Amino acid sequence: MDGSIIHPGNRRPRQFVYPGRMRLSSRLPPGFELNALSALLARLRSEGRPVLDLTGSNPTRCGFAYPEADIRAALSVPAVLGYDPDPQGSRIAREAIATHHGHGLRAGELLLTASTSEGYGLLFKLLGDPGDEVLVPSPSYPLFDWLARLEGLQARPVPSYFHDRWHLDLGALEAAAGPRTRAVVVVNPNNPTGHFLSRAEWSALTALCGRLGLALLVDEVFADYALEPPADRLATALLDPDPPCPVFLLSGLSKVAALPQLKLGWIAARGPGAAECLDALAFLADQYLSVSAPAQAAAPALLALAPGIRGQVLARLRANLASLDAALTAHPHLSRLPVEGGWSVLLRRPAVDGDEACALRLLEQSGVLVHPGSFFDLPGDGHLVLSLLTPEETFRDGLARIFPSL
Amino acid sequence: MDGSIIHPGNRRPRQFVYPGRMRLSSRLPPGFELNALSALLARLRSEGRPVLDLTGSNPTRCGFAYPEADIRAALSVPAVLGYDPDPQGSRIAREAIATHHGHGLRAGELLLTASTSEGYGLLFKLLGDPGDEVLVPSPSYPLFDWLARLEGLQARPVPSYFHDRWHLDLGALEAAAGPRTRAVVVVNPNNPTGHFLSRAEWSALTALCGRLGLALLVDEVFADYALEPPADRLATALLDPDPPCPVFLLSGLSKVAALPQLKLGWIAARGPGAAECLDALAFLADQYLSVSAPAQAAAPALLALAPGIRGQVLARLRANLASLDAALTAHPHLSRLPVEGGWSVLLRRPAVDGDEACALRLLEQSGVLVHPGSFFDLPGDGHLVLSLLTPEETFRDGLARIFPSL
Repeated sequence: MDGSIIHPGNRRPRQFVYPGRMRLSSRLPPGFELNALSALLARLRSEGRPVLDLTGSNPTRCGFAYPEADIRAALSVPAVLGYDPDPQGSRIAREAIATHHGHGLRAGELLLTASTSEGYGLLFKLLGDPGDEVLVPSPSYPLFDWLARLEGLQARPVPSYFHDRWHLDLGALEAAAGPRTRAVVVVNPNNPTGHFLSRAEWSALTALCGRLGLALLVDEVFADYALEPPADRLATALLDPDPPCPVFLLSGLSKVAALPQLKLGWIAARGPGAAECLDALAFLADQYLSVSAPAQAAAPALLALAPGIRGQVLARLRANLASLDAALTAHPHLSRLPVEGGWSVLLRRPAVDGDEACALRLLEQSGVLVHPGSFFDLPGDGHLVLSLLTPEETFRDGLARIFPSL
Repeated sequence: MDGSIIHPGNRRPRQFVYPGRMRLSSRLPPGFELNALSALLARLRSEGRPVLDLTGSNPTRCGFAYPEADIRAALSVPAVLGYDPDPQGSRIAREAIATHHGHGLRAGELLLTASTSEGYGLLFKLLGDPGDEVLVPSPSYPLFDWLARLEGLQARPVPSYFHDRWHLDLGALEAAAGPRTRAVVVVNPNNPTGHFLSRAEWSALTALCGRLGLALLVDEVFADYALEPPADRLATALLDPDPPCPVFLLSGLSKVAALPQLKLGWIAARGPGAAECLDALAFLADQYLSVSAPAQAAAPALLALAPGIRGQVLARLRANLASLDAALTAHPHLSRLPVEGGWSVLLRRPAVDGDEACALRLLEQSGVLVHPGSFFDLPGDGHLVLSLLTPEETFRDGLARIFPSL
């Protein structure tokens, strides 16, 4: 989920030419050129121009003090020498993950994956036939379009709306659900809006899914990073021990321990049919067996280290949010949306130009990289997305450079 | 590729019951009960009865002397602390793999995967739309059916034939290729037949694929394990620098270094359109980024250790083949097929009962686990499949127990 390419869904088409009858799958985009922002970034870097990156989502490059010796030791325990191909993943790792989550989660309800992306792939294979659909509230991270499409499914966006806070549009979700709809995907808290579902939204959403026969996928990779959470937030889907629809929670070490390079994600299954779905997921996972022994063997130790790493990340997120608020006081035409949770903040600006044009202008003229809201399907223009993971001095310097031209 | 379940394609159907409109994808089998042989094995083990397993394919459980300290050190180098999400995989790992293969392979022609199974998944996504087909010569490992089906494709078996040695049936392959056929999959040497393509077969096969506009997938995970290779064998597809069709070679540490638990596979692309296909594969891999930093960081060191591990494996394979030949001299109604390469041998027996019934009988009566040829789509009855990876004493004891009842 932390690819090297700024936005895979936003590249310009380029037609391939193949010899003879050869062609590629129509699941693929027509071409793979960089989008305009990535291309400009590449040009500036090739020219040696310094760039202040306010979009970084790779925590290993953000200056955190990882317990390096402990992590390296965890990855080289004797268990890495053996291969125990349990399709659900090693029981010891699953037990540690269940303990991390709490709320009565059991190791038997978990299945390990090499990434949350793989988790989505397995769930789409589980739930949908080619041609089926999943509903994905937008704005959201653009990866879902591709993860669905690569399994032959279609991700249909359903706009959420902002009114003091973000809200799922349950009427629009129900209206969008057709005979080929198999599941709804929500991210709690959402990326990049930071929206935590409220408990009332959870009840209504699971009731709707139950009534329509849909599964519910809940991506909680950012759930440990609550910043300005409303009192009625759903801290985790696991608070509901008995949902009226099948619920699949996704998470992983990438965010839980800020260790994306170790490639350990997981799915927890609850609700009606969960046992059968876990059987089927184990069958699917058994065809790939993607999770490395070092990641599985290290999981208990890494989860024990994770609170210390998350503490640093949370301090960073809060410090950057405070810097942003301080900077905003001098620029009353700019504002930010509340950040209920997660690693991003949405900056609101007068929409005198389009979001992508604005991001190109800021990069070219100020040497500061931000993401346009359009990359995440934010409606209309007037939003830039900043990463709160950015090192604090870079974040402050970046704001100081771009605010005068917004 | 080393799942815990003996044969995923051979389970008995069981119907799920879901609440409301919920259903699972039709890609899945109707149920997930164990096949008869796995069920019997589970029962015997639950009863505490000892079983001599002549099917083991997990090299970490076969008593080899791995350089344990070196492997553990390789997995905990400082590079494991960083995350460099190159969709093709780290250049240092790819350079080490290119050197391992030789034959002019370049790092730029390689893409890393978490397993050869993931490699197949990416290639099927690359090449086929749902409803398309791939041709797979049989007998073969039964995983291909599922790997294709889970991507919405169909694997169509095309029987090879045995006449002194195994032969691809190129006429049957051409006859089976229809308008929706996108690719041919061959395994060189094949599992479980050990068949290396001859150089003449390679030329004819690549010419056929070029003429029909098909890609060619060549699984060479066992290519380092030649045992009784014919003089005209194709040692590797990389001997052909300029094939007339797109060629995708698959391999990985699982067999190259007998380290399946580290989860590092790779695809090498050559032939017309290879650069475009690598671009597209990188796009696909970028959606998942499944390969762990420890596996990538350790790859150069592990490939340097691999010849020592392979030497032990080759000695084991040869020793067991010699034991089998010695045992066969006293049982002239039994014979074995030549083992050009790989980790398996096909034992021929009078087909007085079906292969699966025979395997059940041997397990129940003699406490010896072998695979029936039918698990690998060997035609008719009369073949059992034994793993030459089995510890030598177990292998000899197992043969001594089963030969009198064959």
